[in-house]
Amino acid sequence: MPFRVHFVDEVTEVTAKKYVSQGTEIVCVHPEQVPDSIESQYDEAFAVPAVLEEVGKSEEEGYDGVLISCFGDPGLKSARELASIPVAGTAESSMVFAAALGQRFSIITILRNIVPLCYDLAQDLGISNKLVSIRDIDACVASMKDVRESGEGVKRICEEAIKAIEEDGAHAIVLGATCMTGIAPQLSKMLKEKNGYDIPVIDPVGAPARFLESLINLNLIQSKLTYMSPSPKAR
Amino acid sequence: MPFRVHFVDEVTEVTAKKYVSQGTEIVCVHPEQVPDSIESQYDEAFAVPAVLEEVGKSEEEGYDGVLISCFGDPGLKSARELASIPVAGTAESSMVFAAALGQRFSIITILRNIVPLCYDLAQDLGISNKLVSIRDIDACVASMKDVRESGEGVKRICEEAIKAIEEDGAHAIVLGATCMTGIAPQLSKMLKEKNGYDIPVIDPVGAPARFLESLINLNLIQSKLTYMSPSPKAR
Amino acid sequence: MPFRVHFVDEVTEVTAKKYVSQGTEIVCVHPEQVPDSIESQYDEAFAVPAVLEEVGKSEEEGYDGVLISCFGDPGLKSARELASIPVAGTAESSMVFAAALGQRFSIITILRNIVPLCYDLAQDLGISNKLVSIRDIDACVASMKDVRESGEGVKRICEEAIKAIEEDGAHAIVLGATCMTGIAPQLSKMLKEKNGYDIPVIDPVGAPARFLESLINLNLIQSKLTYMSPSPKAR
Amino acid sequence: MPFRVHFVDEVTEVTAKKYVSQGTEIVCVHPEQVPDSIESQYDEAFAVPAVLEEVGKSEEEGYDGVLISCFGDPGLKSARELASIPVAGTAESSMVFAAALGQRFSIITILRNIVPLCYDLAQDLGISNKLVSIRDIDACVASMKDVRESGEGVKRICEEAIKAIEEDGAHAIVLGATCMTGIAPQLSKMLKEKNGYDIPVIDPVGAPARFLESLINLNLIQSKLTYMSPSPKAR
Amino acid sequence: MPFRVHFVDEVTEVTAKKYVSQGTEIVCVHPEQVPDSIESQYDEAFAVPAVLEEVGKSEEEGYDGVLISCFGDPGLKSARELASIPVAGTAESSMVFAAALGQRFSIITILRNIVPLCYDLAQDLGISNKLVSIRDIDACVASMKDVRESGEGVKRICEEAIKAIEEDGAHAIVLGATCMTGIAPQLSKMLKEKNGYDIPVIDPVGAPARFLESLINLNLIQSKLTYMSPSPKAR
Amino acid sequence: MPFRVHFVDEVTEVTAKKYVSQGTEIVCVHPEQVPDSIESQYDEAFAVPAVLEEVGKSEEEGYDGVLISCFGDPGLKSARELASIPVAGTAESSMVFAAALGQRFSIITILRNIVPLCYDLAQDLGISNKLVSIRDIDACVASMKDVRESGEGVKRICEEAIKAIEEDGAHAIVLGATCMTGIAPQLSKMLKEKNGYDIPVIDPVGAPARFLESLINLNLIQSKLTYMSPSPKAR
Repeated sequence: MPFRVHFVDEVTEVTAKKYVSQGTEIVCVHPEQVPDSIESQYDEAFAVPAVLEEVGKSEEEGYDGVLISCFGDPGLKSARELASIPVAGTAESSMVFAAALGQRFSIITILRNIVPLCYDLAQDLGISNKLVSIRDIDACVASMKDVRESGEGVKRICEEAIKAIEEDGAHAIVLGATCMTGIAPQLSKMLKEKNGYDIPVIDPVGAPARFLESLINLNLIQSKLTYMSPSPKAR
Repeated sequence: MPFRVHFVDEVTEVTAKKYVSQGTEIVCVHPEQVPDSIESQYDEAFAVPAVLEEVGKSEEEGYDGVLISCFGDPGLKSARELASIPVAGTAESSMVFAAALGQRFSIITILRNIVPLCYDLAQDLGISNKLVSIRDIDACVASMKDVRESGEGVKRICEEAIKAIEEDGAHAIVLGATCMTGIAPQLSKMLKEKNGYDIPVIDPVGAPARFLESLINLNLIQSKLTYMSPSPKAR
Repeated sequence: MPFRVHFVDEVTEVTAKKYVSQGTEIVCVHPEQVPDSIESQYDEAFAVPAVLEEVGKSEEEGYDGVLISCFGDPGLKSARELASIPVAGTAESSMVFAAALGQRFSIITILRNIVPLCYDLAQDLGISNKLVSIRDIDACVASMKDVRESGEGVKRICEEAIKAIEEDGAHAIVLGATCMTGIAPQLSKMLKEKNGYDIPVIDPVGAPARFLESLINLNLIQSKLTYMSPSPKAR
Repeated sequence: MPFRVHFVDEVTEVTAKKYVSQGTEIVCVHPEQVPDSIESQYDEAFAVPAVLEEVGKSEEEGYDGVLISCFGDPGLKSARELASIPVAGTAESSMVFAAALGQRFSIITILRNIVPLCYDLAQDLGISNKLVSIRDIDACVASMKDVRESGEGVKRICEEAIKAIEEDGAHAIVLGATCMTGIAPQLSKMLKEKNGYDIPVIDPVGAPARFLESLINLNLIQSKLTYMSPSPKAR
Repeated sequence: MPFRVHFVDEVTEVTAKKYVSQGTEIVCVHPEQVPDSIESQYDEAFAVPAVLEEVGKSEEEGYDGVLISCFGDPGLKSARELASIPVAGTAESSMVFAAALGQRFSIITILRNIVPLCYDLAQDLGISNKLVSIRDIDACVASMKDVRESGEGVKRICEEAIKAIEEDGAHAIVLGATCMTGIAPQLSKMLKEKNGYDIPVIDPVGAPARFLESLINLNLIQSKLTYMSPSPKAR
Repeated sequence: MPFRVHFVDEVTEVTAKKYVSQGTEIVCVHPEQVPDSIESQYDEAFAVPAVLEEVGKSEEEGYDGVLISCFGDPGLKSARELASIPVAGTAESSMVFAAALGQRFSIITILRNIVPLCYDLAQDLGISNKLVSIRDIDACVASMKDVRESGEGVKRICEEAIKAIEEDGAHAIVLGATCMTGIAPQLSKMLKEKNGYDIPVIDPVGAPARFLESLINLNLIQSKLTYMSPSPKAR
């Protein structure tokens, strides 16, 4: 039951492997024809054709499912039209856990640019009423490695999480960028021990990986009434 | 990573075990002090104290999570207040998959009596906009074994599923009673081969079992801001 | 046209009698088999079976209606399934007045624990869009007598009401705990005279008592399509 | 505790008096400067100034409350700005009972022309999610006396009520025209005995009369933050 | 393609002419029988009959469309029932642009009194989810000329716009009073140059004028299923 | 005040020119690197990069605005991030008129495949509550020329429009495919004369063209808080 994960750097690969069940093989691919980072809907537009090509290959090569591992869920809908294997998105799969575990949640992401997009994704999933705020730490993807390794990243995310809880009424936190993967345990501990907030913190690689694995196990794919197969034509 | 499933008869035990990952142990318990079947909110009221007692025991005995395996999610909120291990509900966990995989879905349940309750549960989860209808096959729990074994059950459920798709616009089906577990593959096949509808059919035991397993793996529990721990007192 | 009120201490009995029409007899009952106070959904779970027993008795003994006098509306849905006489809830009946008299309202309750439950009740009634906030004064039921009698209670509630108006945009206040009954006139006067806010303050015993009385007069009971009668079985 | 009811013909006067508490005096007024009937928003526009004049007089003459007894609630918002006594509307007060007693309801009114207006009123009250349909019997106000007395009226309303239940999923019925007052018991009986539907049927004079009476008893008026007093000026 | 604009003072006439296409003739009328200013729903009630008379005349005299140029859209629905030429409202047409150009917007109006009305208008248009706040500068219509000419007006509106952006999350601003017409370019420049906010600021005369002009060009009038023609009768 | 329209075949070019104001120059461009037709989100994905290139050129060459003339609004959000001139979408601009002119509307489109996408676009605009149904005539883009010229197209669209009105409660119709442009007058006449339905029928080229023209005249562009400019990087 192997599945292929797109768009991963070294960090997401490491955490992805930590979270899946024993026996599940993860094969990571980073398409070449994509922007250096995905920080806007404009960036997404240029990434999507390459993502779709990879999704097509995954199915041809016999993979059991695909995760589009980027928080903006670039190309998710198109990929679901294309594929006959389950395709999971990062934001969608992460928000599913938040919606089930608390009455209201917030997303903490990297840049203000993608805040409107995150809201659209919550609306597509149908749970925008539960999303009380989307906050950002004002860091671009390129700077995140430094931010993360210096410990500064977790600190800033924690500050925003506390504001989300105290000012916006959040009861759960979704880490809204794949480059934030791996810090959930540490953030969770900080919120609990320092501030007394015992709430779910959703990892944006782990949660989607487990969600996709569940789809494969349950033999579930996206609805072909929502995501009808595209007819053949010159493209 | 064993977990304990409540409220299961022989059918749900069998399917539950089919769906979980290798290595996960499922221990089923059927509390004695509960109504013969749960077919109304009134029935639920009398089942809940016994459910809570079992949830409490699960945690004491070191289990990693609990599934309240009954589609009305009886006692889910109270159990989540009580426990420090993840508690999953049947309806909630099933609807999560439907919401993620299609734009709109329907629930097919057994009796008209629990239709309003199902709607409330969708509202609690925050996805009632995606729930286009709740249909029933007019069969009580007691009759379901016969209905299921005679093949009549799947036929009736299939008829309602087709109405849900054609009249209500459903793009996915949630089987809304744990006694319907195990028929998803057959129903799915019927809808696809006879009617051309290639859509997700969510098993009400398998999907929650996988969802709970994911929570355990991801080290996630219900938000303690939504489900605050009850203070000690005489009860 | 007598009706029976559940769950009342000496305070609620006194105010209940003040608000009903002449000729209406109120008989108060406090079931023995319930937790010392209802401050969580967990507490509710243990109170509900006794509540239902009392509701059943009310109908057998010829009462014309029942009020479940506790702001969490414990057992309201089950009781409505059971009974063929009108059953009113405290939160539901109070919010009805707030929704009709202003564009937005807030609930001031005692403890943070029941805030998520209050939101669920607003959602069940269908008016959650009008509920702008739920605030609490951080006092348990047990301490409320002291808080109330020292005058501290009204002061704290008033502070939260002002925040609800100025920060959250509330145009009406629902007192969200039956132990707050009787202070509406005083609070109303404080808000008007000191702060110039001339807004409805809903008493959580008076409003429900009048609402139930209206149901009885209008010969209205809960819909038996929403609250279908439970079938007979061993419970 | 007398209150004054506007816009009533002989039928509504009779039923209004039946429903209020003993001791409550009802004084009916039919302003002269209004259209022959209110069957559109255009008709309402010409009725409103006279309604407001009557509301102003009610307060000056010491009445305790006013009911604008016409299902379109003409001038309700303006009247609430003007008055310092409680002003109740017909549609609003009727829908309040429907929302509290069932999960979904329908309005049966006389003419298609006022259907969009009824929807707006439900939206103002905040409960449009619970309003599943608005049906009409295609009869103008002028013809209603005949329609009612011939028994044809109840028959036609019953037909629409059954469609509302069976096709639209209604669990309660609001009679959406004051000229339908008085038939609730008969309609209720027909639905129950012939069709087995035991649901609330809300009388559009009785329910508002009781609701206003409750406001007076509870010493509640409309929020002066939603309905701020108009400043003095030439009008 | 001339059209007639109601309720305009010298300011709105000047800006209206600036915004329409070449060749479009605007004829302004200020009905005599209306309150000195429209600052409440009560004021509106007295203005509406005169507005409707003017709308009727517009159609008789062969005009191609009518704009009710007052931000409360007084009589809009009735006028649409009456007329067979397109009738546009000020608030409605302004909000249409805001909804299309940004994810969330705020209205800045003159007085707190009309805030609830503005919300109702957004709800009627169906976009209340996008309206994050309605703020006011606490100035009556009579004082606006001074406020505007002293430059104080733009300054105060700018302050509120900044709060709308920073505190409420607005991405666009609707100027919510016709007496604010003409300042959009200046306000827009201030927000961009001083604060870096490059967002749409909607002029409450220009936007509706262009919207009406578009309706005329596209040969579109209001739906006669929503706004059915009133039947003839004594009014 | 010239503006450039993308994605037009001979039909849309003809109608676009009919609807705009005198003096407005329309320059049509059909990018070469796009799929033969846009009939799925998958097709859109491959069209978007070329659309964005054209939008970029439009701005460089000094055009005043851009219309993405394809009903799925492909690349609208990305284009708005990129450009500093107003960018209008086809579906969005068309729905704006429908929302303003009636209480509820339907979209009639060509193929079932794009129905879910149309719903997403309504949700993005914030008016999905007013969209009662999306119907299709089951014709691909390639066949539309024949369908249109044989008169069969209008007939089929008319049949669906009548169902939208009578079964779904639509009060206005949006023609949901640019290849349907030009038939609005004929369809409108058929609905009125044969069926008595006098409702707005929105042309998917004319309405957006006028809307964009209004944006240019009003000096309005998309909010740069919703559509933040992408940072420079390798793409």
